[in-house]
Amino acid sequence: MKQYSIVLALLLFLSGTWCFGQTNQPVIADDFKPSTLNQPGKEFPQVNSQGYVRFRIEAPHAQSVVVSLGLGGTKGGTPLAKAEDGSWKGITSGPMEEGFHYYHLTIDGGVFNDPGTLNFYGSTRWESGIEIPAHDQDFYALKDVPHGNVQQILFPSKSTSTSRRAFVYTPPTYGKDKKQRYPVLYLQHGWGEDETAWSNQGHANLIMDNLIAEGKIKPFIIVMTYGMTNEIKFGGLRNFDITPFQTVLVDELIPYIDANFSTIADQKHRAMGGLSMGGMETHTITLNKPEVFSWYALLSGGLYKPEEIKDNSKVKLIFISCGSFENPDGVKNSVVALKAAGFNAVSFVSENTRHEFQTWRRSLKELALLLFKE
Amino acid sequence: MKQYSIVLALLLFLSGTWCFGQTNQPVIADDFKPSTLNQPGKEFPQVNSQGYVRFRIEAPHAQSVVVSLGLGGTKGGTPLAKAEDGSWKGITSGPMEEGFHYYHLTIDGGVFNDPGTLNFYGSTRWESGIEIPAHDQDFYALKDVPHGNVQQILFPSKSTSTSRRAFVYTPPTYGKDKKQRYPVLYLQHGWGEDETAWSNQGHANLIMDNLIAEGKIKPFIIVMTYGMTNEIKFGGLRNFDITPFQTVLVDELIPYIDANFSTIADQKHRAMGGLSMGGMETHTITLNKPEVFSWYALLSGGLYKPEEIKDNSKVKLIFISCGSFENPDGVKNSVVALKAAGFNAVSFVSENTRHEFQTWRRSLKELALLLFKE
Repeated sequence: MKQYSIVLALLLFLSGTWCFGQTNQPVIADDFKPSTLNQPGKEFPQVNSQGYVRFRIEAPHAQSVVVSLGLGGTKGGTPLAKAEDGSWKGITSGPMEEGFHYYHLTIDGGVFNDPGTLNFYGSTRWESGIEIPAHDQDFYALKDVPHGNVQQILFPSKSTSTSRRAFVYTPPTYGKDKKQRYPVLYLQHGWGEDETAWSNQGHANLIMDNLIAEGKIKPFIIVMTYGMTNEIKFGGLRNFDITPFQTVLVDELIPYIDANFSTIADQKHRAMGGLSMGGMETHTITLNKPEVFSWYALLSGGLYKPEEIKDNSKVKLIFISCGSFENPDGVKNSVVALKAAGFNAVSFVSENTRHEFQTWRRSLKELALLLFKE
Repeated sequence: MKQYSIVLALLLFLSGTWCFGQTNQPVIADDFKPSTLNQPGKEFPQVNSQGYVRFRIEAPHAQSVVVSLGLGGTKGGTPLAKAEDGSWKGITSGPMEEGFHYYHLTIDGGVFNDPGTLNFYGSTRWESGIEIPAHDQDFYALKDVPHGNVQQILFPSKSTSTSRRAFVYTPPTYGKDKKQRYPVLYLQHGWGEDETAWSNQGHANLIMDNLIAEGKIKPFIIVMTYGMTNEIKFGGLRNFDITPFQTVLVDELIPYIDANFSTIADQKHRAMGGLSMGGMETHTITLNKPEVFSWYALLSGGLYKPEEIKDNSKVKLIFISCGSFENPDGVKNSVVALKAAGFNAVSFVSENTRHEFQTWRRSLKELALLLFKE
């Protein structure tokens, strides 16, 4: 059925191109459905099989309504037009790329969220989110398989004088056999995001559940906490000081996890990875603390140079990834150099994606296939 | 310090009343602070020591901005005025009642959330929320005590052909002694809310952590799931059919919890409670399934009549509560009648609160003090 509608959409698209070839006006398939990230019962925004997004905002007395979502990832935008019923309507000028996108509305000069959608923490604020169905969305779909849990923990942090929050993914088998212990991946979000991002935007738990159900990976625990510990005023990354977060992660969170969860509490069974700024943190902390982690992963988050890593016998894996619209050559070249220096290094490039969550969902899947295997 | 500022505020208030007695214009204490439920780094909305709320919304070209929050709970509202800097500002016309309140903005006729605040699911949408510091807020404060976890689970539901979400509070000691098993409270949200409400708005986990740290209660598990199973279109309560939710709860969720958590899996160690519509569900399901639950709790959610309950030997406790601005006499009279009929019934009236979460936070605390004690 879905295949059929894609073919139909393609035919419509092609016939449209033919009919209106001179004006370059494609036919927009009339198969819009509410986005899967809409609030319960909300009809708008809607996405069609081509990836166009249709908006409808109620603001009868507004002077202007502009949606930040437009072509080319977060660039551009879509101005809405006032309809006869007093609502504001509009369609993106082209199909959006596959996967998750943040966006917001600018209404009469003020920034607000679309009341139709769920909100996701990005850009240091809770933003509207939309999901463009992807050709490979099956790997993060909610399926009828055994599901692991995502546990909110509050762990004591002396260095920041508070109880800090983290989320812990435990695989479906966790706790069934009281003697079984699991390796752990510490997984960081990007700048302006928080510890909710990998579950909410990334579907990290569903990616793991599906890989485990297919027997493709050995189950492991994932721990996700807030990485902008010193960034109270959300300054730039130039003056980022890793020390406060490194202290929270290495001296407070890891001991708490090892004391309270069934982990294999040694360096050989501990990984660190992160996206974007979280990759930068991973790079710095793994180099500062080689005795803590054996498995390193940078997801659109920089590169390792072979000379930065002193002892290649302590490193089990270096995984480096990005979207094909980012810096794929840099990623590939870095991995070639690491391999030449004797490291077990793997690159992954997500096709037709950029600095967004579809790149990182795919990267986590590829990483999970490699982690803790020897 | 806090005591002092309350006295100061009172003095300011009284002196204001005296000075401007003829115009009834109280002095508003100039000690506004960002609400504790603001998004990180956001200065507005702000609350002062008297409970006044000050708003600031950026929408330079808007024609009108009105905040739904006003005196008398959710009634009334606060129109904002355009300031010289292009923002919209305003203060509630009086102090708000203690505790949590939902609200939203109406901007040029459209309903949006305040971009300064976190969002909470109520009224079938994610709404802005604000917290008015309460004189008794210590019992749900985040403290340096051992914390339990809030686990998101996805449990299989054949009757609704999907994996459904629930949140499970496990006490701090959970899992430490592999042999220890815990009683369970199934706790329901109100109409238009969902399974996130008791943790986000209610702070159920912190209430439990604090009571356990003080040694006042025996630790138990709390399970919270979505109770509007048949209400896809969010219709009224008049046509509410309990069957779909009762099936999910009794035939699917309870067996899953008993199979996957360290519970004492019998009727004597199982409670059901709920607020508002969740109380209505509790009332119906406990009467339909007397073999499943022994402990019943209605929080601003109706009453039991003695003649409705066939066998008083199976019921360990009936707890009925509400806010003092709701129906306290009805609650008290119901409990008197239940006691006269031989039931262990307890009433609780939350002072100076209405059909809002401060009533339910206090009710949960009072209920927890009684549960599973014999």
